[in-house]
Amino acid sequence: MSKPLILVSNDDGITSKGIRVLVSVMKKLGDVVVVAPDSPQSGMGHAITIGETLRVEEVEIFDGVKAYKSSGTPADCVKLAKHYVMKDRSPDLIVSGINHGSNTSISVLYSGTMSAAIEGAMEGYPAIGFSLCDFSSKADFSHVEEWVEKITRQVLQKGMTKGIALNVNFPPKQNEKIKGMKICRQADAKWQEEFDERFDPNGRKYLWLAGNFVNYDKGEDNDEWAIANNYVSIVPCQYDLTAHHAITQLNKDWDWEELKS
Amino acid sequence: MSKPLILVSNDDGITSKGIRVLVSVMKKLGDVVVVAPDSPQSGMGHAITIGETLRVEEVEIFDGVKAYKSSGTPADCVKLAKHYVMKDRSPDLIVSGINHGSNTSISVLYSGTMSAAIEGAMEGYPAIGFSLCDFSSKADFSHVEEWVEKITRQVLQKGMTKGIALNVNFPPKQNEKIKGMKICRQADAKWQEEFDERFDPNGRKYLWLAGNFVNYDKGEDNDEWAIANNYVSIVPCQYDLTAHHAITQLNKDWDWEELKS
Repeated sequence: MSKPLILVSNDDGITSKGIRVLVSVMKKLGDVVVVAPDSPQSGMGHAITIGETLRVEEVEIFDGVKAYKSSGTPADCVKLAKHYVMKDRSPDLIVSGINHGSNTSISVLYSGTMSAAIEGAMEGYPAIGFSLCDFSSKADFSHVEEWVEKITRQVLQKGMTKGIALNVNFPPKQNEKIKGMKICRQADAKWQEEFDERFDPNGRKYLWLAGNFVNYDKGEDNDEWAIANNYVSIVPCQYDLTAHHAITQLNKDWDWEELKS
Repeated sequence: MSKPLILVSNDDGITSKGIRVLVSVMKKLGDVVVVAPDSPQSGMGHAITIGETLRVEEVEIFDGVKAYKSSGTPADCVKLAKHYVMKDRSPDLIVSGINHGSNTSISVLYSGTMSAAIEGAMEGYPAIGFSLCDFSSKADFSHVEEWVEKITRQVLQKGMTKGIALNVNFPPKQNEKIKGMKICRQADAKWQEEFDERFDPNGRKYLWLAGNFVNYDKGEDNDEWAIANNYVSIVPCQYDLTAHHAITQLNKDWDWEELKS
C-alpha cells in the first residue's frame, strides 16, 4: 500500500516552531507536502484573498519535504494546495498547526489554524487542526508529539465523517503527564474585550485590542474543562452553521401575515 | 418607550451603496450608529486584528447619523462599537450589509457581512446580516427595502434566541416581484476553484483565485433553492460549531485502548 499523502498548513507562518514539530511527526506517517503562509496570520478566521493577487513559491526549509510559502491566508493555502500545487495527486489528509496558542471555545471562529482544517473538510478531506494552549513562540511541544501521532493514526485508519474537521487542543507542558483525551463540545465562553487607547508620534489616536477570556460554562464535557484538567481536547466541528432548532421556532413565532409579499 | 438603538456595519466599506440603503431603512426604526470598515473587506471571514493597531475615526457621511470608519475588519467593527464607541449605551440590534453579492450556502463562512452579525450574536445581541445576490457595485436595491424593514421589525418585536444570527439573502432585481420569504437551511454547495496564473512586469508569477459555484443540493428547503425561485432566504446561523452527532460516533468508532496515555 502506498503511503498516505499529508498536506500540512498553519497560521503562524511557515517558519514557526509549531509547524516544524507537526512536519516531523507527519513524516513518520506518510508523504508530506507543506503549503503555509509566508508570515503570521493569527486571527484571520476563514478569510480568503479576493480582489488581490496571490504568490506561492517553493522553499527548502524542511529536510526531504516539498514546501511552499504563500502570501495568502490559511484557507487560501488549502485551496492553493488542492487546485494548484497538488493538482496531480490529492492529499489523503490535511493537518494544520501546531498553533502557538489555544483555539478552544469560540476562539475556533477566529482561528486561522482551524480555518485551514475546515477548508479541508469543505473540500471533502479528513482534516485536523492542532493547537497548544501556550502562546509563547518558544513553547515546549515535547509532551504533545506522541498525541499528535496517535490522533493522526486514528484518523488515517478510521477516516472522518463528511463535513467534519477536528479541533484538537493540548494543555501546556506541566509537571504532571497529560491524563488522556476527551471528545468535547465547544465551551460557552467569550472574550471580554477592551481597547487600549494610545497616541502615535503625530498625536493621532490608535487602539490595541486587548481583553480577557471568560468561561461561563459549568459543564465537564467541554474543551475548556478538558484543558483545565490536563486532558487533550478534541471537538468535532462542522461548517454547516444552520441552527436547525431555530428554523421551527422562527416558523412558529414570527407573524407571517405581516411578512407576506 | 425610547427608540431602539441599532448598530449598522458591513464588509463592503462605509462608502458602499448597500450600507447607505441599510442606514436609510434603519432610521425609520430606531436611533442609528454606524461603525464600518474604511475600505472593502470582502472574504475576510471572521478575521480580527491581533498584533496590529486599529484606527477609528468619526465621519459625517450619513445625514443625522453618528458614523465611524475603522481600519479593522467587520468583526473588529462590532467589537469597537460595543467596547469603545458605544460604551455608554449598548445597541439593541446589530445589522450588517446590505452586501453586494450572495452570502448563501458555504459563502457564509467567508463572509465579512455575516462575521459582523455573528460577532453581534456572540456578544448577546439580536443580529442580522443582509446580502443581495448581485455583485455589481451599482446593484439595484429598490426591491429589497420593504423586506429589510419587515424582517427587522419582526426581530425587534420578537427578539432572537441566544447564540443565533440571521443570514438574509435577497434575489437580484427581476421583472417578477419577490414571491415571499422562506426560513431555510444552508445549502450543500461549494466553490469549484481555479487559479489563474499570470506574470508581473518583472517576470515573477502571481495568481488570481477564480472559480464557479456548484450546487449539489437537491432539496427545496435550502437558501440556494429559495434564491433561485425568487424568495427571500433566511438561515438562522449559530457560532457553536460542535458537530454533536459526531461526538457519540468518535467515542464509539475510535480505538480507545490505543489512545490511552
